[in-house]
Amino acid sequence: MIIRDYNEAKNTSRKVEAEGWTSVRLLLKEDGMGFSFHITTIHAGAELPMHYQRHLESVYCMSGKGSIESRLTGEVTQIRPGICYALDQHDPHILRAEEEMQMACVFNPPVTGTEVHDASGAYPLPADDA
Amino acid sequence: MIIRDYNEAKNTSRKVEAEGWTSVRLLLKEDGMGFSFHITTIHAGAELPMHYQRHLESVYCMSGKGSIESRLTGEVTQIRPGICYALDQHDPHILRAEEEMQMACVFNPPVTGTEVHDASGAYPLPADDA
Repeated sequence: MIIRDYNEAKNTSRKVEAEGWTSVRLLLKEDGMGFSFHITTIHAGAELPMHYQRHLESVYCMSGKGSIESRLTGEVTQIRPGICYALDQHDPHILRAEEEMQMACVFNPPVTGTEVHDASGAYPLPADDA
Repeated sequence: MIIRDYNEAKNTSRKVEAEGWTSVRLLLKEDGMGFSFHITTIHAGAELPMHYQRHLESVYCMSGKGSIESRLTGEVTQIRPGICYALDQHDPHILRAEEEMQMACVFNPPVTGTEVHDASGAYPLPADDA
């Protein structure tokens, strides 16, 4: 059994940051679960164009308020606690936070933790490792 | 993109119940994500021996208080918000809730939603579909 504590992990290299978001990777590929599991905080006011070209991702909103816009269809869906979205088509999208949002995210295939980040700190567009 | 709302889904057949717990399956096998994603509520006072023999499961505590005991090692870990456990060895375990706990659960392979439940409403021991 693997035990991880978000409140410890957020002070370690499991926490990654970019402009507009921070993500704490509680389970990575090396854990052998076949998915990775991240607690991601989207900062208030963030507007994040994203496109996971090699991963499927599901996101469950635990707190906060915002929206997601599909860049395939233009459709905008409000996000609030209890909303889950799944990018089953590798959908390019824009995530917006009106208030800080805390999200539980699952990636398949699992993130390894060594994916390259945008060193400029710019918006992660196309990103593959939130 | 798939959008699901916990607050709607909990009033549909996505919600399954047994003694001590209820689970709302927001993503199932048919969604094609390669995992299933459930919001599971463990009722206060529940003591649930479980053993997922065919699935790997990770669980993230969003609220509440309890513990998990490994039936392999006897080790007991306190559960509170922010704790994540992953049953990477198909670990048989006992989950106990001191207070109602709400958990975000990921299963690999994904649950189909048609797994057979214990019709008696008894503890799900060995269960494969929480």
